[in-house]
Amino acid sequence: MTIHPIKGGSLTSVPGFQASGVPCGLKPNGDPDLALVYSPHPCAAAALFTTNTFKAAPVLYDREIISTEPGSIRAVVTNSGCANACTGEGGLADTRATAAHAAERLGVAPEQVLVMSTGVIGVRLPMTKIKSGIDDAVAGLADDAASGHAASWAIMTTDTVPKTLAVTVEHEGRRYHIAGMAKGAGMIHPNMATMLSTVVTDAPLSPELARTALRAAVDASFNRVSVDGDTSTNDTILLLANGQAGGDAIEGSDHPAYAAVAEGIATVCLELAKALVRDGEGATKFVEIVVQGARSVDEARRVGQSVAGSLLVKTAIYGQDANWGRIVCAVGYSGVDVDPEAVSVWLGDLELFRRGTPLGLDEERAAALLAEDEVSIRIDLGAGLAEATVWTCDLSHGYVDINAHYRT
Amino acid sequence: MTIHPIKGGSLTSVPGFQASGVPCGLKPNGDPDLALVYSPHPCAAAALFTTNTFKAAPVLYDREIISTEPGSIRAVVTNSGCANACTGEGGLADTRATAAHAAERLGVAPEQVLVMSTGVIGVRLPMTKIKSGIDDAVAGLADDAASGHAASWAIMTTDTVPKTLAVTVEHEGRRYHIAGMAKGAGMIHPNMATMLSTVVTDAPLSPELARTALRAAVDASFNRVSVDGDTSTNDTILLLANGQAGGDAIEGSDHPAYAAVAEGIATVCLELAKALVRDGEGATKFVEIVVQGARSVDEARRVGQSVAGSLLVKTAIYGQDANWGRIVCAVGYSGVDVDPEAVSVWLGDLELFRRGTPLGLDEERAAALLAEDEVSIRIDLGAGLAEATVWTCDLSHGYVDINAHYRT
Repeated sequence: MTIHPIKGGSLTSVPGFQASGVPCGLKPNGDPDLALVYSPHPCAAAALFTTNTFKAAPVLYDREIISTEPGSIRAVVTNSGCANACTGEGGLADTRATAAHAAERLGVAPEQVLVMSTGVIGVRLPMTKIKSGIDDAVAGLADDAASGHAASWAIMTTDTVPKTLAVTVEHEGRRYHIAGMAKGAGMIHPNMATMLSTVVTDAPLSPELARTALRAAVDASFNRVSVDGDTSTNDTILLLANGQAGGDAIEGSDHPAYAAVAEGIATVCLELAKALVRDGEGATKFVEIVVQGARSVDEARRVGQSVAGSLLVKTAIYGQDANWGRIVCAVGYSGVDVDPEAVSVWLGDLELFRRGTPLGLDEERAAALLAEDEVSIRIDLGAGLAEATVWTCDLSHGYVDINAHYRT
Repeated sequence: MTIHPIKGGSLTSVPGFQASGVPCGLKPNGDPDLALVYSPHPCAAAALFTTNTFKAAPVLYDREIISTEPGSIRAVVTNSGCANACTGEGGLADTRATAAHAAERLGVAPEQVLVMSTGVIGVRLPMTKIKSGIDDAVAGLADDAASGHAASWAIMTTDTVPKTLAVTVEHEGRRYHIAGMAKGAGMIHPNMATMLSTVVTDAPLSPELARTALRAAVDASFNRVSVDGDTSTNDTILLLANGQAGGDAIEGSDHPAYAAVAEGIATVCLELAKALVRDGEGATKFVEIVVQGARSVDEARRVGQSVAGSLLVKTAIYGQDANWGRIVCAVGYSGVDVDPEAVSVWLGDLELFRRGTPLGLDEERAAALLAEDEVSIRIDLGAGLAEATVWTCDLSHGYVDINAHYRT
């Protein structure tokens, strides 16, 4: 199966989707902070939400909408600058008012509008600004490439670059489009608690199958990346399918086109997830951790996440220090039952540790590998045949800079 | 019960214990790096070790000795600068050779000598230096105050200050002495995987009761602190009891003096654990997190550790930013089933969040509280009567500095 990237693609690369991104005054510097995605055709919708007990108001609202109206979503309003989390009943009313205002301006029903928010926790949404921003965003809706990119800009917080892409997949002469955007650079950790993302497609997926495809895609992408181990109150990924590609409804995973569409969705999610890590707060290096020889994929993933979460591993990579003992140490406290005498570790193609014993370290070669922007670590547990890959970034002075003064 | 601190106390404040600390060339700058603790009288010994699967050679060795010879320990050799972890069979042979050499010089049996190592992982011990250091350390053994302090200096790695103290407790006119030393500033996280520590007492504890007292003390101290969430390969705490205080052997927890001695041990462990956090790598602030209103102590502890482990909380405290939403967020992903509408949060005596709703933030008061060296966070889960306290430090530029280039 072939995935074709659409050069310069964004949400509006998918037929039938319009978008806009505008400033409404939530960000003090006047940057765009409100994005609108709109489909004139009702969409099948699926969503996954943060596992944090403190779910932000828009998470509670969207969860309710998706569970009752998964077949007729038409718009998503996303604001940055304010998370509307830990804001009590008033915050939930603000989210409902956001949806209602957008619905009125778009001429759709309130329950056809989803809402996402990201930014500072514990602060109420300034509703006057939000409503005025929605007015501008509705006026600015368009399906050109620039509008899709404008939306991906407007959802950024500490992100330094917008993250968006689009691809096509084909099945028996029919072409399906899939596009996504995501934001998130901190509070990024598995359990889908990672970020905000909207993925759209013109494939005629049913809500049930949209959910199946989304869950599989997220398990292999957003749930395999970690920046700082924090799991946010707001993280949400939405998949909207407007069916404009035509053809039979894709209602069962045995539908001949399902595999192609699902792979397209998985590809978009994986590229977005990697883009989040590349843009991790303060990140100077992108780190891929491949764990092989595990008894199960879950064990491989847990070992990988233990290494990806180690501050000592992350600071060593930042310092370009081949302190591989920290990698072995993080394998050892992963909670997975590992035989120390069976474990081997590589940095790139340089073997460092073979079945429990250190090899002489080629410092020059290790230094060259660690000087690259992308660092690859491979761990063989010597226990089975399963493997998993996780992605993380280094921990730098920049991370501390960004997070010591985020709110102020 | 009264705990009396011994001013300027150290291991040698306990009758019958001698100590020394010498340089043997493991640290490039010539600082002391080998400590010896010696008791002419055989000691009852108990120990707790790291939960990391990759246990360093001295951990494997000590575990074997303690399980077979818990009643006749007479010496502990500790080196800094090299962890002797992930060093295979050769590393274990080095540990045995270390014990054998010290035993020969002290005129005791090899199985009466315990060994601890701390420093870089994956590097073999330079045995010529170690043996020469042991010779010097044996020659330097003394029971004056300076010798106890010299030992506590010699076990430091990235520590900026030595950690040692001594106390006495009394029961029915008999005075018991308890003293401890510890090192550790990074790779510090609960599960006893925190550091190296040696605690000594002249109480006539049996090995079994020494273990009971040590486990209780560690659960309430070292297992409640976190610096960076990493769990090292080497962490060990030893308790040696030489019985020189006299009196009946303390063999059951119903012995009338047991409670006093156990409280003394717990106090020494708690003060050492707090000292580790105060000296956490790069720490500029000491943070106490009290979790109340939990259904169980374990749930309170888990919530506290989730907050203590949050990089976002720790960087906000470093930046003196009252970003309390990050505290609530970390409560929410602790894994403990919490009712968001029942949770309240205080910074010092300033209530920030009451039963799920933010209170207006007094920025000036919050800034004043965060400008202090010691920051107190209190969380009420509103679910029960249990509580627990954990301690951590902030995450600063200094942490990144120290760990980006530790090995080189």
